Amino acid sequence: MQIFSRVDDLRAALAGKPEVVFVPTMGNLHEGHISLMTQARQHGRTVVASIFVNRLQFGPGEDFDKYPRTFEADCAKLAAAGVDVLFAPTEADLYPEPQTYQVEPPEIQNWLEGEFRPGHFRGVATVVLKLFNIVQPQTALFGKKDYQQLMVLRNMGRQLALPIRILGGETVRAEDGLALSSRNGYLTPAERAEAPRLARELNRLRDAIRAGNRDYPALERAAMAALDAAGWKADYVAVRQQADLQLPGSPDAPLVVLAAARLGVTRLIDNLEI
Amino acid sequence: MQIFSRVDDLRAALAGKPEVVFVPTMGNLHEGHISLMTQARQHGRTVVASIFVNRLQFGPGEDFDKYPRTFEADCAKLAAAGVDVLFAPTEADLYPEPQTYQVEPPEIQNWLEGEFRPGHFRGVATVVLKLFNIVQPQTALFGKKDYQQLMVLRNMGRQLALPIRILGGETVRAEDGLALSSRNGYLTPAERAEAPRLARELNRLRDAIRAGNRDYPALERAAMAALDAAGWKADYVAVRQQADLQLPGSPDAPLVVLAAARLGVTRLIDNLEI
Repeated sequence: MQIFSRVDDLRAALAGKPEVVFVPTMGNLHEGHISLMTQARQHGRTVVASIFVNRLQFGPGEDFDKYPRTFEADCAKLAAAGVDVLFAPTEADLYPEPQTYQVEPPEIQNWLEGEFRPGHFRGVATVVLKLFNIVQPQTALFGKKDYQQLMVLRNMGRQLALPIRILGGETVRAEDGLALSSRNGYLTPAERAEAPRLARELNRLRDAIRAGNRDYPALERAAMAALDAAGWKADYVAVRQQADLQLPGSPDAPLVVLAAARLGVTRLIDNLEI
Repeated sequence: MQIFSRVDDLRAALAGKPEVVFVPTMGNLHEGHISLMTQARQHGRTVVASIFVNRLQFGPGEDFDKYPRTFEADCAKLAAAGVDVLFAPTEADLYPEPQTYQVEPPEIQNWLEGEFRPGHFRGVATVVLKLFNIVQPQTALFGKKDYQQLMVLRNMGRQLALPIRILGGETVRAEDGLALSSRNGYLTPAERAEAPRLARELNRLRDAIRAGNRDYPALERAAMAALDAAGWKADYVAVRQQADLQLPGSPDAPLVVLAAARLGVTRLIDNLEI
């Protein structure tokens, strides 16, 4: 696996490489990331990963400074997964000057995650566009665990006419159902034992909808109350249309239920397509 | 010359074409545009022009509806200038849905032209990024007459890591000094005879600075007063640093003087590098 931190070096290495598939990450890689790398191989001939903890998408009180950096271990996992090229820029490589041109997503950036993380999706869209312009892939993969992020990036790609196919990879879960996440590493052992409740509540809500319950607000409130009763602090549990994350309209529209909640100092998110 | 209106058709035609040089326009082509086409030929092997009157960059009270559309004549001029491919999308081709993801430029978008045309540079940056993503040129050319636009686009290219070299072409002028512009066509014969005063005032201001006058605010006020006294309504005359359009700081920084003024219903802009 070749590793580059400088934009020019990466571009030189990728010049003429066929069918580039790109998987951007913030590092601290787990099986969810590795699953994306394996899928990437099926969609092209040159698999490029990136590791960059993007300051732009973290709010003032968030965990940018303590976000886990595990570069050596990440490199070993990527190499083992057959990744061809790793782009691991420093902040000076990617932001040699303050980033003042940004991609401004529409109203969706203020819903759900956006309500609790103002500016987050602007930061995500901007860094991903920049990484796209550097790597120039034919295909890019993002995990469905960040469901709203995947939608923002797909919409950005379509609206800005990016010549890039954007695919979503299924969420990978621990045996007890907890969605894999770098932030799981913040959990104490007791919190880790409690953490699968988030996925259990989403499953319960999905089962209720499948059984015919259409009172989404009541279902959402019940799930949030169950989390809060178990010591969580739920930011939202929301039943939305898969296609646009709007409130359910037509009865045939495929739905997704999304949730975010804090357990101690750790904020976890998850979702289930219905 | 091949002509395409659909994005997919254009992309198919350009696949594998070497060294694409791109000159975006809003049509109603004059010698200034044709000069860019000729220069384009020196910077690559495939010259692509576009014609698209971009609603996003026009304000509510501006001349989007009356902006001159002269497609047949434009095609003849482009073919004669040796352009290989013309992209001429309809609004439905370029904006099949409302454009909700936009490029947000920084504070520079609110200065000078931006003060009098709120949202203009956001609309310019967004459509140019989209056109870049469609055409995927190695090089793009823009006229220096829209000096601030060229700076916004160059900064956007650098900040978003676009793999595109962005070049500026010199302003082409009529014999009496008037900068060529599609909007000159709005002028009555009497206004057309008066119009070169804008360039004359810029030249006078440049000469004063070259002669050692450093009282830029007084020079700006005098130029605006001279225009207003001749029946114009000056929006601004401004001496700025070429590099960033900031107010002159260091005494060695190369300067540019920019102006915008209305003559009757027509708003003209011009600038001179010093």
